Amino acid sequence: MSIRDESLKKHYEWQGKIETVARVPVGSKEDLSLAYTPGVAEPCMAIHNDISKSFELTRRWNTVPVITDGTAILGLGDIGPEAGMPVMEGKCALFKAFGNVDAFPICIKSKDTDEIINTIKLISGSFGGINLEDISAPRCFEIEKRLQEELDIPVFHDDQHGTAIVVGAALLNALKLADKKIEDVKVVVNGVGAAGLSIAKYLISLGVKTMHAVDIKGIIDDTDEFNAPQREFARQINPNHIRGTLKDAMVGADVFVGVSAPKIVSQEMVKSMAPKAIVFAMANPVPEISVEEALEAGAFIVGTGSSEKPNQVNNALVFPGLFRGALDAKATKVNEEMYFAATRAIMDSVDPSEFSRTHILPYAWDQHAHDMVAKYVKEAAIKSGVTRK
Amino acid sequence: MSIRDESLKKHYEWQGKIETVARVPVGSKEDLSLAYTPGVAEPCMAIHNDISKSFELTRRWNTVPVITDGTAILGLGDIGPEAGMPVMEGKCALFKAFGNVDAFPICIKSKDTDEIINTIKLISGSFGGINLEDISAPRCFEIEKRLQEELDIPVFHDDQHGTAIVVGAALLNALKLADKKIEDVKVVVNGVGAAGLSIAKYLISLGVKTMHAVDIKGIIDDTDEFNAPQREFARQINPNHIRGTLKDAMVGADVFVGVSAPKIVSQEMVKSMAPKAIVFAMANPVPEISVEEALEAGAFIVGTGSSEKPNQVNNALVFPGLFRGALDAKATKVNEEMYFAATRAIMDSVDPSEFSRTHILPYAWDQHAHDMVAKYVKEAAIKSGVTRK
Repeated sequence: MSIRDESLKKHYEWQGKIETVARVPVGSKEDLSLAYTPGVAEPCMAIHNDISKSFELTRRWNTVPVITDGTAILGLGDIGPEAGMPVMEGKCALFKAFGNVDAFPICIKSKDTDEIINTIKLISGSFGGINLEDISAPRCFEIEKRLQEELDIPVFHDDQHGTAIVVGAALLNALKLADKKIEDVKVVVNGVGAAGLSIAKYLISLGVKTMHAVDIKGIIDDTDEFNAPQREFARQINPNHIRGTLKDAMVGADVFVGVSAPKIVSQEMVKSMAPKAIVFAMANPVPEISVEEALEAGAFIVGTGSSEKPNQVNNALVFPGLFRGALDAKATKVNEEMYFAATRAIMDSVDPSEFSRTHILPYAWDQHAHDMVAKYVKEAAIKSGVTRK
Repeated sequence: MSIRDESLKKHYEWQGKIETVARVPVGSKEDLSLAYTPGVAEPCMAIHNDISKSFELTRRWNTVPVITDGTAILGLGDIGPEAGMPVMEGKCALFKAFGNVDAFPICIKSKDTDEIINTIKLISGSFGGINLEDISAPRCFEIEKRLQEELDIPVFHDDQHGTAIVVGAALLNALKLADKKIEDVKVVVNGVGAAGLSIAKYLISLGVKTMHAVDIKGIIDDTDEFNAPQREFARQINPNHIRGTLKDAMVGADVFVGVSAPKIVSQEMVKSMAPKAIVFAMANPVPEISVEEALEAGAFIVGTGSSEKPNQVNNALVFPGLFRGALDAKATKVNEEMYFAATRAIMDSVDPSEFSRTHILPYAWDQHAHDMVAKYVKEAAIKSGVTRK
């Protein structure tokens, strides 16, 4: 049976991958008097007098919704909010298992940016942070930006920054093995949606100087064919208005980062790259080129998004620890210092005895790595001063 | 230490009364392939092709949000959405303990009826039913009505119908002990907000023929002083336009049902009632008259909302079993047949050896009673044909 068929069978058996449990006894008169009426009036009034007490007297301090509009689920596209729920529940299970965060899936039946923002704002009082998930570009940029401006809890679009953080760690570790400097390499980022644009910007922040960002219409430039966020980024990285196809872009590239579509990279393209080429083909569930084909074509290091292959470059390494750290720090936002901290934590938590071309990242199920991310992010939040009193 | 002080202390210790747990293993490559990517694509596509599969392949079938806008929290009034969270969490703990329902608190930061309705509709795809809680009248009537019309999952405003269902059971059992018929008794309902109006209407459905509904401005009538829902109800129960104060209304009454304000019923008023008077003083957390005072003034049976006293008339007996039954029946709505079924279940589950003037209802923590409610409600939903295929 294939993984996908077996997964479907398991999902029918599981009947849901998370559940809610009670943390308090309610089995007697005394229990009910304390957890419920009449005693509960007192914590209610304490919060009424000081809303910040909601982070102490309820589960708010540890609770994060995983929110989608269903427009960019995995590599499956716009399949609808309900259909995104199995992914959201999976994230919630990982949040709990690796970050001890109480996460809860919310699917929003709207594609209207303002309506999505307003809905999340209206329910934000129940939560200690907001994890946005699988919302398509360019809508997701404004949703994240506005929520970050208007809410006083961390707002994190996992597809953008979770992916960027883990790709950053993967690239820096891969470059160590290839003995190349980040300032010297030419990087191609293919797929300039939410994840691609965020990865591209983050790699620039980490020190990349030469980059082609490629979308379905070719290398992005400041022209009408491209959307506003792409054009703005093109002005930064493509001042000489270089144009061309993905195939053109890849000639002589040291690094390929794909968050695009299945099977669009050929062995010929990989062969045209620079020596010791690094290929991160992260389209889900089917990558831009298979690990086997890329290696056969001469790639030095290959990573994909799948847990079935070596070098899984997956944001599952990021979000549980990142929110654990942010919540522990009582952070009011997430900032680039916290992203860098997460990247460093992931880099540092690869077991040195295993560090190799087929093991550039810790395993997604490595609790030590998640704990390191939490620790580094908490420290960065405190150091950068984005915490509640 | 008082119950309220002890409850505050406990809430600081608990740091939340519910939490989310993972129901699936995620500790290995194989686990992640099934619960998360790439396997999860298959259940996603199954739901994309048939949205009803979201009730089978995710936790939706068992998940109910407890939603408030914070405008009518306990008897504390409009204290704000965050301040309502300790009550919502308490309800969620009871939902799980007694109904095995995965409940989740959502506070909405809006007092605009349309905005609240829209927010709930937009997030409804994550849930198998909607429990509205502590939303003030008359706003709550339209919110519930519109959601019931526009959603295809059960929508239940607990303050209205949960309270009505348990008061119905309490009254019918009390009347057995008083040896009076429901058709013959004169009932005073004091406090004609969400709960009071719903109780009053439900008692009429159960057979009450003579009723005064009394608000802060006196016995309600079809005049400008009263709001639209009160006027509509007054046209039904007060065709002769009887006016007067609460004190006037109580003279000769067999039954007092209060969901109003602390200490507004005097011993003199109770003394003016008919013989074998039944007093349900359910203002929370301080009742309209204390149990001791009411008994001293000659009341035959006294109930309150508190778990610290005999005859707790609390909707905690209703909502866990009602939603368990509705979810098990795959109900698309809740109807009056299901309310009657819940009332009968509560009546029938009092231990006969304990049935007496100080034990007219099962204890709120009696699992057998919750199971009976679930069973009767499920049967009623199926019999009345309000279930998904």
